[in-house]
Amino acid sequence: MSARQKRSSAANLSSGMNEILHQLCCIGCGARIPGAAARSDFRCTVCGELYDVEYPGWSQRGGQDRPNPGGLKWVLRERRSSTEAVDQSGVWRFRELLPILDNFGNAVTLREGNTPLYHMTRAARALKIDQLFAKHQGMNPTGSFKDTGMTAAMSVAKAWGFECVACASTGNTSAAMAAYAARAGLRSLVLIPEGKIAWGKLSQAMDFGAVTCQLKTDFDGCLRLLSQIVNEAPIYLLNSVNPYRLEGQKTPAFEIAEAFDWSVPDHLIVPGGNLGNSSALGKGFREMLELGLVTKMPKISVIQAAGANPLVRSFREHQAASLEPVVADTRATAIRIGNPASWRKAVRAIQETGGWCLDVTEAEIAIAKAEIGAEGLGCEPASAVTLAGLKKLRAEGKITSGETVVLILTGHSLKDADYTIDFHRGTLLKEEEAAGREAEIAALRRDAVAVEATPDAVLAALKGSAR
Amino acid sequence: MSARQKRSSAANLSSGMNEILHQLCCIGCGARIPGAAARSDFRCTVCGELYDVEYPGWSQRGGQDRPNPGGLKWVLRERRSSTEAVDQSGVWRFRELLPILDNFGNAVTLREGNTPLYHMTRAARALKIDQLFAKHQGMNPTGSFKDTGMTAAMSVAKAWGFECVACASTGNTSAAMAAYAARAGLRSLVLIPEGKIAWGKLSQAMDFGAVTCQLKTDFDGCLRLLSQIVNEAPIYLLNSVNPYRLEGQKTPAFEIAEAFDWSVPDHLIVPGGNLGNSSALGKGFREMLELGLVTKMPKISVIQAAGANPLVRSFREHQAASLEPVVADTRATAIRIGNPASWRKAVRAIQETGGWCLDVTEAEIAIAKAEIGAEGLGCEPASAVTLAGLKKLRAEGKITSGETVVLILTGHSLKDADYTIDFHRGTLLKEEEAAGREAEIAALRRDAVAVEATPDAVLAALKGSAR
Repeated sequence: MSARQKRSSAANLSSGMNEILHQLCCIGCGARIPGAAARSDFRCTVCGELYDVEYPGWSQRGGQDRPNPGGLKWVLRERRSSTEAVDQSGVWRFRELLPILDNFGNAVTLREGNTPLYHMTRAARALKIDQLFAKHQGMNPTGSFKDTGMTAAMSVAKAWGFECVACASTGNTSAAMAAYAARAGLRSLVLIPEGKIAWGKLSQAMDFGAVTCQLKTDFDGCLRLLSQIVNEAPIYLLNSVNPYRLEGQKTPAFEIAEAFDWSVPDHLIVPGGNLGNSSALGKGFREMLELGLVTKMPKISVIQAAGANPLVRSFREHQAASLEPVVADTRATAIRIGNPASWRKAVRAIQETGGWCLDVTEAEIAIAKAEIGAEGLGCEPASAVTLAGLKKLRAEGKITSGETVVLILTGHSLKDADYTIDFHRGTLLKEEEAAGREAEIAALRRDAVAVEATPDAVLAALKGSAR
Repeated sequence: MSARQKRSSAANLSSGMNEILHQLCCIGCGARIPGAAARSDFRCTVCGELYDVEYPGWSQRGGQDRPNPGGLKWVLRERRSSTEAVDQSGVWRFRELLPILDNFGNAVTLREGNTPLYHMTRAARALKIDQLFAKHQGMNPTGSFKDTGMTAAMSVAKAWGFECVACASTGNTSAAMAAYAARAGLRSLVLIPEGKIAWGKLSQAMDFGAVTCQLKTDFDGCLRLLSQIVNEAPIYLLNSVNPYRLEGQKTPAFEIAEAFDWSVPDHLIVPGGNLGNSSALGKGFREMLELGLVTKMPKISVIQAAGANPLVRSFREHQAASLEPVVADTRATAIRIGNPASWRKAVRAIQETGGWCLDVTEAEIAIAKAEIGAEGLGCEPASAVTLAGLKKLRAEGKITSGETVVLILTGHSLKDADYTIDFHRGTLLKEEEAAGREAEIAALRRDAVAVEATPDAVLAALKGSAR
């Protein structure tokens, strides 16, 4: 059942979607279809691959559907001082660059985006890089970059008249979906494998009123069942196969270009889990280049955890032509993904920009996270692979000191407080994981010390723990 | 030892502070001193009370130190589209209204403030209030309103040339202090009572590299020891007695006025813990009125948890002329404070605006938090007292349907994920706490349900849990 079929059974006269400006293009076989013709599971009817959202009018220079770069830059700047919700959103402020809705006033927004771009002065000094920044997507409303994608896809769900949305997820996706569903007045359904629920990860979905079902199956089983459910019932699928999520997730590329006054940094470093993020950022920069908003793309490099590195293996063993799922194991749970949905899109972003794909160890992640913390920036462990990866790229001479580098931090430190506690109390890493890095780790650790309640004892403790 | 004395032992030629524009005024005896003459523990040398920061030039109409309202509004709007860090801060964008530094380029900022003002459509409908908003201060970088105050006080610490800062806190204050200290390149010290450490609350301070000392004493003992330490060593005190923190915390008042195009809402509802927040907001609106930026102040009402209600008792039993500390007990930990430092300042804000002070039960807090969640807004339990209090004020006819009301949400939901989990799993409230509210609670609860892995079973579960 397609969105169009479902809608025809409802009383809506208009879809709320802009079907003229956008279409879907299969990244596998190149088949093009109207957005309304997509299957409920968003798989290509011909080859089963994923779709990209396309804007055919953009390729006609001088055409009326193609945004004018100069005018657009002016409008985008003006909107920054607007008090309208749709302008205050860091996603919908760029609405000409994701013209999927008929009426942007109906966008479901929690004022996502507009995240800070922080100078990382300490790490820049340590790595001898002149210009090093962190774009902190963890500063979104629910604490992760998923919000930027969810505002887009939830607005589509609402425009189509759906009353219920669903995803299979135990983490950041379910939190974002539940929040935006609540905001839109839609019901939300979360499917998770029974047995080992991480309640902390589910707390936000519960808070926002999602219905959570535990199923006697694994994660892939949840996904398969969900595809079946959305095919039978009027429920909108919000897993990352939904191409509209990437339309929102590409907007940090616009924010970054705008922050550099429409020049672009030389290098972008992105954590690699399900690979939607690197895919979306690649799309954002590619589209800006096509529209003449910028004159080049940054190199996009993807960093995975060594215990969850299917894309690294794909590059190493199959020249990125195919990908074999792995059994994922890393404490950086947001990228503990063995079978990433968007790997083909990510490969395209890496290859067309000349970026790299590499992996880092558990100790490297933990050290990098503590170093990011020492800059006053809190992030979840998955975000820290970026700094760990940068160190390797710098050591290998793949990034030079004169280049401008932006790390994409994807989640807030409060998403995984246990990781932070375990690191500082010394219970995070196994002995063999920490081997060879003990001194570095000891210098960064900040356990709470018990001292006598006297000024001298406290001052001695302070002096003793100087980094 | 005063800041001036400490500085004279350092090599700095300039204090970095603007000693001409601001002074300190004791809220007890009215004694006025230069900022540089403050004692290290920020207590009045005459009577021991707290200080307010004052700008004497503002009372001279037409004087050159008094900001021009029209010009200022224009500048504030222009700064919203600036890419400078100091303009992107929702605190320092208003720098003419907190002229404490010589050079605002030296402000220590994490791009705090500029928090969302959300329409609360569901609650507005349920309570029959036309205009109900939530100003979400939990969307600050470390997840609480403390960041706005910390950017101000940390900038002062840095301007004076301090190399170390300290506070006694187990919660949001220590997280904010550690983050801003790391950003400023200063060391930070956290004192906490030994025995019952809540590691989750400390995770951020550890992440940002603070040195945490556990002491064999209670919280008041930690505070006393800290006063002694800052008197003996060059360490800057950042507990809420520091008057510069309130200068940052008053800026949400400016943001609210600006969002309403310099009219002001009729009613502001604020959680009451240490009472710095209501004090600061009162100061912000009072100063805007004095400068002619607005023409009235909103009523400011303070809501406490029934288990931590010293201010409510003070109003009830002593006409707010004195306050007796209580033993605080509430699951809303951010306002579990029995002896609030800023109570006199808060009394002034409530009395001069005609607001109210009341308390709400544990069940009322839990229900209100789930209702806020159902709007797609995540907050920590302390924030939810605002909605619970609004319901009471509405029921008592103290707020009418035509009034515009703004709830101040103070912390992010991820600050206390356990509370959310316990509520939805049914383990938060004792039977006697929930008595009489069971149906309401049951309708809001969202525990994860185990169901068979079939479409029918999942759809039945979804249908069964319709709110």
